[in-house]
Amino acid sequence: MADKIRVGIIGAGRIGKVHAESIAYHIPEAEVVTVSDPFVNADIEKFMKNLGVKKVTKDYKEIINDKDIDVVLICSPTNTHSQYSIEAANAGKHIFCEKPIDMDIDKIKETIKAVEKAGVKFQVGFNRRFDHNFLKVKGLVKEGKVGDIHVVRITSRDPAAPPAEYVKGSGGMFMDMTIHDFDMARYLSGSEVEEVFAYGTVLVDPAIGAAGDIDTAVVTLKFANGALGIIENSRQAVYGYDQRVEVFGNKGAVEVSNDRQSSAVLSTKEGVASEKPLYFFLERYMESFTEEKKQFFAAIKNNTAPPVGALDGLKPVLIAKAALKSVKEGRPVKISEIDK
Amino acid sequence: MADKIRVGIIGAGRIGKVHAESIAYHIPEAEVVTVSDPFVNADIEKFMKNLGVKKVTKDYKEIINDKDIDVVLICSPTNTHSQYSIEAANAGKHIFCEKPIDMDIDKIKETIKAVEKAGVKFQVGFNRRFDHNFLKVKGLVKEGKVGDIHVVRITSRDPAAPPAEYVKGSGGMFMDMTIHDFDMARYLSGSEVEEVFAYGTVLVDPAIGAAGDIDTAVVTLKFANGALGIIENSRQAVYGYDQRVEVFGNKGAVEVSNDRQSSAVLSTKEGVASEKPLYFFLERYMESFTEEKKQFFAAIKNNTAPPVGALDGLKPVLIAKAALKSVKEGRPVKISEIDK
Amino acid sequence: MADKIRVGIIGAGRIGKVHAESIAYHIPEAEVVTVSDPFVNADIEKFMKNLGVKKVTKDYKEIINDKDIDVVLICSPTNTHSQYSIEAANAGKHIFCEKPIDMDIDKIKETIKAVEKAGVKFQVGFNRRFDHNFLKVKGLVKEGKVGDIHVVRITSRDPAAPPAEYVKGSGGMFMDMTIHDFDMARYLSGSEVEEVFAYGTVLVDPAIGAAGDIDTAVVTLKFANGALGIIENSRQAVYGYDQRVEVFGNKGAVEVSNDRQSSAVLSTKEGVASEKPLYFFLERYMESFTEEKKQFFAAIKNNTAPPVGALDGLKPVLIAKAALKSVKEGRPVKISEIDK
Amino acid sequence: MADKIRVGIIGAGRIGKVHAESIAYHIPEAEVVTVSDPFVNADIEKFMKNLGVKKVTKDYKEIINDKDIDVVLICSPTNTHSQYSIEAANAGKHIFCEKPIDMDIDKIKETIKAVEKAGVKFQVGFNRRFDHNFLKVKGLVKEGKVGDIHVVRITSRDPAAPPAEYVKGSGGMFMDMTIHDFDMARYLSGSEVEEVFAYGTVLVDPAIGAAGDIDTAVVTLKFANGALGIIENSRQAVYGYDQRVEVFGNKGAVEVSNDRQSSAVLSTKEGVASEKPLYFFLERYMESFTEEKKQFFAAIKNNTAPPVGALDGLKPVLIAKAALKSVKEGRPVKISEIDK
Repeated sequence: MADKIRVGIIGAGRIGKVHAESIAYHIPEAEVVTVSDPFVNADIEKFMKNLGVKKVTKDYKEIINDKDIDVVLICSPTNTHSQYSIEAANAGKHIFCEKPIDMDIDKIKETIKAVEKAGVKFQVGFNRRFDHNFLKVKGLVKEGKVGDIHVVRITSRDPAAPPAEYVKGSGGMFMDMTIHDFDMARYLSGSEVEEVFAYGTVLVDPAIGAAGDIDTAVVTLKFANGALGIIENSRQAVYGYDQRVEVFGNKGAVEVSNDRQSSAVLSTKEGVASEKPLYFFLERYMESFTEEKKQFFAAIKNNTAPPVGALDGLKPVLIAKAALKSVKEGRPVKISEIDK
Repeated sequence: MADKIRVGIIGAGRIGKVHAESIAYHIPEAEVVTVSDPFVNADIEKFMKNLGVKKVTKDYKEIINDKDIDVVLICSPTNTHSQYSIEAANAGKHIFCEKPIDMDIDKIKETIKAVEKAGVKFQVGFNRRFDHNFLKVKGLVKEGKVGDIHVVRITSRDPAAPPAEYVKGSGGMFMDMTIHDFDMARYLSGSEVEEVFAYGTVLVDPAIGAAGDIDTAVVTLKFANGALGIIENSRQAVYGYDQRVEVFGNKGAVEVSNDRQSSAVLSTKEGVASEKPLYFFLERYMESFTEEKKQFFAAIKNNTAPPVGALDGLKPVLIAKAALKSVKEGRPVKISEIDK
Repeated sequence: MADKIRVGIIGAGRIGKVHAESIAYHIPEAEVVTVSDPFVNADIEKFMKNLGVKKVTKDYKEIINDKDIDVVLICSPTNTHSQYSIEAANAGKHIFCEKPIDMDIDKIKETIKAVEKAGVKFQVGFNRRFDHNFLKVKGLVKEGKVGDIHVVRITSRDPAAPPAEYVKGSGGMFMDMTIHDFDMARYLSGSEVEEVFAYGTVLVDPAIGAAGDIDTAVVTLKFANGALGIIENSRQAVYGYDQRVEVFGNKGAVEVSNDRQSSAVLSTKEGVASEKPLYFFLERYMESFTEEKKQFFAAIKNNTAPPVGALDGLKPVLIAKAALKSVKEGRPVKISEIDK
Repeated sequence: MADKIRVGIIGAGRIGKVHAESIAYHIPEAEVVTVSDPFVNADIEKFMKNLGVKKVTKDYKEIINDKDIDVVLICSPTNTHSQYSIEAANAGKHIFCEKPIDMDIDKIKETIKAVEKAGVKFQVGFNRRFDHNFLKVKGLVKEGKVGDIHVVRITSRDPAAPPAEYVKGSGGMFMDMTIHDFDMARYLSGSEVEEVFAYGTVLVDPAIGAAGDIDTAVVTLKFANGALGIIENSRQAVYGYDQRVEVFGNKGAVEVSNDRQSSAVLSTKEGVASEKPLYFFLERYMESFTEEKKQFFAAIKNNTAPPVGALDGLKPVLIAKAALKSVKEGRPVKISEIDK
């Protein structure tokens, strides 16, 4: 391995750019050497060149086959994640894969097998675990400050609904959006979800319903340790990205509220006004995108387990499938019904 | 009717005393003339005399049969509520009845019939509707500030679990405690609950479980208007009485937090500390106990409908029964299954 | 002394009514038997009769000379305070006197002498000491939570400027408004003010300047214990009554913020809005008007020193005079220059 | 000028490192090519090499004389600022100079002359103007949201007092610490300070007093536009770096509070705890160190005036001198007395 960890990024869409930028600006211990995207254009080329990326190509094989590349970041569409992961594993590369690994459980399991066989590091992009607020909650929970956990509550609302076009290919709200919250529920509770009951409905945009998806949900969870969980989702909170959690236990409760651009409070005849939450995930979670990779690179350097492993990629997909089944069948669904 | 509304109180336990005191100190337009309690003792007598109450008796009939009494406040055990209400109605008295009217639906309906036949005013003691915070939420909702309602969330936790003895006669957590939240859900959403799914469990005190009850619950609701609801309950929040709500809609969200004794924030080397929530319902909701009666007396004077009518007493009981059935049968339960 | 403490109120203006009401509704251990006001009219009579006051008269002498009256509450214009206090003391009555005792130092001292000679209880109406927020600050300071005090800061702004007419007879902003803050500075610091420097100016209403007064001030204080103080005043905070304090010391800082009608926070596309501070002193400090009298009556019953004594009435007047001199002469002024 | 702005940094102490790092990680439009420090050692060399700095030297002349360097960042001790600035100006380089330019007014004026003569850009390192909170306050003030300004209040407390050794060479608290607040007062008020009155005292550490300095101060300001100002300073706030401002005017008030590592609030039996303010300026203001240079480099590229000019470097020094004179002479001091 060279002095700097050498990274190839497959997929130069929004999240691919985020990763390229955060490595270039914030992670001196790594460098992006190649970026691939079948739809490479002049804009992408310019963007990547400005960050110091040497090669931009249409062919992801140029990353898989490059012996000088240590790590592959998979930022391509979900339906390619498992294939690229397996190819990268077979080529002996460490893998950082965006969530979800796949929507098909068998494919995820195949991926896990390939990774294990190759003995490479594998991390899933559940970036929120690295957010300053949620880290603090987790830290206090681990210190025992709230005692035994009784309830985990997650409020997670996007600022604006995606177009119905996007929704069609997204795998549905539970797989596309709630997946982060399922991960957060496991992370904060320190326990596995055993059963799910979900109400899902269309209150934001009928076009989303027409596309076969939901845009509003209340999901309740039963954890293996006896605790209960709640996830509130909406595709549209007009006041901004609403990202809060609370963990309640027998010794107390900890909650985090939304981040804002400033703490300014303006008091006038009309009332007392403060800032809206940061608009969306790029504004809200930028630092976590850096932190998750820093820890991944450290796991590679120190040959330790990455903080979010392959199983952490599988579990939320199982929960998402159970939640969808619950909405469809109007009953609580056990995870064991999904993962037989 | 005399110049002042003349009130008789049946039941001189904790809540009976609260009502007597709030009339004596805060409601000059009414006066308590008689208080009855089968377990009257010197303490109760002294307490009531100090408030200016003229007669304290063991026999509630002395209230029912007193022609000079305009209003009966029923603060006796739940299983006497419907009987006393019917007797008071038949005697032509206006009735303010503590919640719940009864645990038996037929008895509630009988009570409603008697009240309607007698043409007297009837109000149920859902005092939280008159709390400054919840009133503000309701006001903003009515003004359309949050638009169409998508989700109503209620966090409602007692500071300390009651003894198992109490639990046995309480009708269970849903009937004893959550009943207020079911009322609040209807009040804030402006819509009826159609279906309930509840997870209920014992995480606070095994003795409560042994007594056949639960102490922790997450209840999800489906409203007739399409909105969803969440109620979080615990019998024990060690930091105090936790009473918060949030209403989320297509134009925004409004939430209220806990009241505290002062706004003091102490910053030291150890951290930044503020006050705990007010301890329990007597501290937290005292003003609402006055306000609910003021509005009831005004409804009598102006011959208008009381703000919390007899049907408002019935509906939460139906929801409580559905919630209990949901826990027992592990499935969502429609209110129509309960109220055939 | 009768069972209930018997109170006469001299002056039936705004503050006289506040006291009459708070005794009638909240202080069962006392009763107002007589109210006097040279401008008594039908409205005042009706108001007082409704509270159960038996006699309403034009002549304050009917209070002074009534042997059955234990306590005189002096709520008349400032220039009568010392005279009525002396007469009441000579008649052997305990005295609760609104602030300031007088604007003339000699008259205050004369009053103090008369009170001491008569051996009656005397309390000045610095009600803010009994406010839940400031009590908490004082309590934390006394517990040593902030350690040695370094700085006391008081922000005190009225919601709307009084008419210039009022200003003329008010004794000036320092005597009329800041006087409360001077008392609060002494109370919170637990130390006497030794020197004052004040900037006073007219930024709100030129008519106030034309009337010879100021409407905006920043006052800095030097305490005997070495601490420093700051008072910020404005006659007009368009967002409401702004009443905050902070005490900073070598172990930490404690601050209190404004009280609001509710904790509601509304988040919409336009921003995040919360309630304005309670409008003015009647809304903000109502409970303190009750508490100060409860403690005064307790001091009488238990024959202990009232919590705000006659010297507490003198000191803020001395500071107010020093502050005014400082503005006029553009230099720091020692209290010892005023009280030779 | 090369594609990237080429920067030389004189002084590799704490602040020099901060600037080097923020350019390397966050400002792709510039690069640090040379760093000089008379006390260069292996650690500094390693630190700078890691950031990609090509040359590290003991001799600042290697920067001044390097024709390929566009910008000099002066991070050396204060007593060298004006000399190096003048040399850099004469060499035709743009200058970013840490505050204060000098403690001697004549030297500052000489510097300004040299800069003007050379026609180079000059910016002073008042980084707080670029902080997200203060920017928001300034923005709201400029939009007229608070109307005409009546009072500007700045609370500025360091977390821990510096050693007396440091204090001796610091120029005193007003020159070393309050200088930022004097700049902030001018910035937020949009007006010049005309007069100062200051109470300064030693309450934190007697050794600071023995070194001839103060550690606690309350400074009041009179602005040319009639507004008043308050600055509260302490060398030691045990709970962390306390950095708040409030601007109050005839249309309202805006205030900002401290930033914290997370928004976590922990409620337990013991109370409600939240995080302390970020510890000190490196934690609190890191982003502003980047932003100030980004805007400086933009001013160079676009040939516009830098956002914090040379006069902005002079004015706070005048105020600091007036404040010190005020403490010594116990009277308000006009700026015109200092800058004759």
